[in-house]
Amino acid sequence: MANSTIRFGILGCADIARKVSRAILLSQNATLYAVGSRSIEKARKFAAENGFPSTAKVYGSYEEVLDDPNVDAVYVPLPTSLHIKWAVLVAQKKKHLLCEKPVGLNVKEVDVILEACESNGVQFMDGTMWMHHPRTAKMREFLSDPQQFGELKTVNTCFTFSADQNFLENDIRVKPDLDALGAIGDVGWYCIRGILWAADFELPKSVIALRNPVFNKTGVIISCGASLSWEDGKVASFHCSFLSNLTMDLTAVGTKGTLHIHDFVIPFEEKKASFVSAVESGFKELVTGWEPEPSEHTVMTDIPQEALMVKEFSRLVASIKNEGSKPEKKWPTLSRKTTLVLDAVKTSIEKGFEAVEIIS
Amino acid sequence: MANSTIRFGILGCADIARKVSRAILLSQNATLYAVGSRSIEKARKFAAENGFPSTAKVYGSYEEVLDDPNVDAVYVPLPTSLHIKWAVLVAQKKKHLLCEKPVGLNVKEVDVILEACESNGVQFMDGTMWMHHPRTAKMREFLSDPQQFGELKTVNTCFTFSADQNFLENDIRVKPDLDALGAIGDVGWYCIRGILWAADFELPKSVIALRNPVFNKTGVIISCGASLSWEDGKVASFHCSFLSNLTMDLTAVGTKGTLHIHDFVIPFEEKKASFVSAVESGFKELVTGWEPEPSEHTVMTDIPQEALMVKEFSRLVASIKNEGSKPEKKWPTLSRKTTLVLDAVKTSIEKGFEAVEIIS
Repeated sequence: MANSTIRFGILGCADIARKVSRAILLSQNATLYAVGSRSIEKARKFAAENGFPSTAKVYGSYEEVLDDPNVDAVYVPLPTSLHIKWAVLVAQKKKHLLCEKPVGLNVKEVDVILEACESNGVQFMDGTMWMHHPRTAKMREFLSDPQQFGELKTVNTCFTFSADQNFLENDIRVKPDLDALGAIGDVGWYCIRGILWAADFELPKSVIALRNPVFNKTGVIISCGASLSWEDGKVASFHCSFLSNLTMDLTAVGTKGTLHIHDFVIPFEEKKASFVSAVESGFKELVTGWEPEPSEHTVMTDIPQEALMVKEFSRLVASIKNEGSKPEKKWPTLSRKTTLVLDAVKTSIEKGFEAVEIIS
Repeated sequence: MANSTIRFGILGCADIARKVSRAILLSQNATLYAVGSRSIEKARKFAAENGFPSTAKVYGSYEEVLDDPNVDAVYVPLPTSLHIKWAVLVAQKKKHLLCEKPVGLNVKEVDVILEACESNGVQFMDGTMWMHHPRTAKMREFLSDPQQFGELKTVNTCFTFSADQNFLENDIRVKPDLDALGAIGDVGWYCIRGILWAADFELPKSVIALRNPVFNKTGVIISCGASLSWEDGKVASFHCSFLSNLTMDLTAVGTKGTLHIHDFVIPFEEKKASFVSAVESGFKELVTGWEPEPSEHTVMTDIPQEALMVKEFSRLVASIKNEGSKPEKKWPTLSRKTTLVLDAVKTSIEKGFEAVEIIS
């Protein structure tokens, strides 16, 4: 096996781990090396069903994955409340960490995880796949172009899906002891990340939750929203929910241009994704129409965004492993900023929709 | 002239009156009968340039238009601060009133105007043209379909345009003595109307302005936003501004469906308009794409929305005039509700972003 091929161990058999296993298979510079579950039967079944090579290790515990000296990197798709324990152990075992989002239940937990990664010299990255789609880079180019987009003024994002009764009663994402962040951790995470991305990761000055958040019987948020404001006048808002039809919008408006996208987290199609941009839009004579109209741009990708994520993560890991590079700080920084805003939204809800200042 | 052809008088030579003059020409059941300006020269030029028939009356004052016994209906495109005086006079002279939006500076003024119309038995309608586009009716059908859209959960609207330096310094829409409502009256009006339309005109329970409104030197709002919440849990938000690229979005999300539109106030093209709807959107296996994807729907119209507005207004006027019908109450009701919310946003800004209850 080439030294640059990163050997992955996976903790648990979560549904999302099926998608990431496929991504590892597709990523060229990584390989499915081990899977561990509290039930070795489940681990065996998972390995068999998800394209693990026959040489892959199947363990009846998470610990064994971490203790395997051949594991370079560990993917942690466990419920959020378990991240702090296992993510820190991953780092302490000097394994690089690809951690499913949300990274922790709050920024304090995230800081413990990131500190463990930093002090152990391992790469950290969260599982926000859309960051790695080539469309995202194309859209970033547009937003960064002072002639095309100008200065960002406002962003709105919305990520909702309509959970069925079984999900609303039994899914780990509505359980206070598992994914206690509920809708804000699962889908709000992307709304916040999308806003921060559009703002080139400048943190807002303050955050105010919008009225009418919805909680389930155990107090987990299943629908909420917030408005964000920046020192320079920028504003943003988002809405996330388990109670509305699947919707995934990001709209960013600058002084000169506008970006529209309706599938920012999961593109409608795997290999072809588009966005709509408008530059110096205006009206025809007598305001009977627009001139110019917004235009659609299509970006192709041979391998899906989650495989590009694994590829980028594995490239960084290989560089640390083989060339003595330092871990890339960009990824932990983005996770931390996303969590800071998420915390502020939760705090604002808890404080009766007060403005919460963001202190990084 | 057929009795069913409504004879319009226009007060002033505002830019928007050029578009509405063309709409009157296109509407089949209305005719350009008179125009009045404080300068008869301007009125003459306006009539000559905007297709008025040679028999049309050209007056050097607004009063003369109102005193002409052959004028059935008056279009008032004057600056908002002048509406209360002239709209009330129009009604007192028993002329039907097509009043440009915003209708008044606040709901108190609007109530005076609407009361004058009601007590004089004349039809009132404001100039919100998109209400009359056949696309709007098609979208309404979608939103009203419990199988397709379900129950409305959230709406977001955005209407911005990038005003040039001349506009920001000299346009009547930034002058405290003319259109004192600034951006919220000019473009926010449509955001609020769009939200109310999506909510089937159920008023929200409360309104909270978002942070970072922008005022010009004279205190006129040139950028702001708000969040709205309803008793039943619905939420909405909007952003309106003179400082960002032309953008005109409405997104409504229900339990089962989603509506997307990027040109809700002025369609990109005059005779063809589209919207995107999604019904019970879901993901493909392994969340590698969407199934079904949202779909685009195109609606054709032979005559533009502003001509459909004039046509509907003139139909109502003809029915009152020729058949003794009562004025249609729908239109004044919608204007009043829009103004109520607009007032609440302004009050919330004035009170430091407090929640303002809507009391109809």
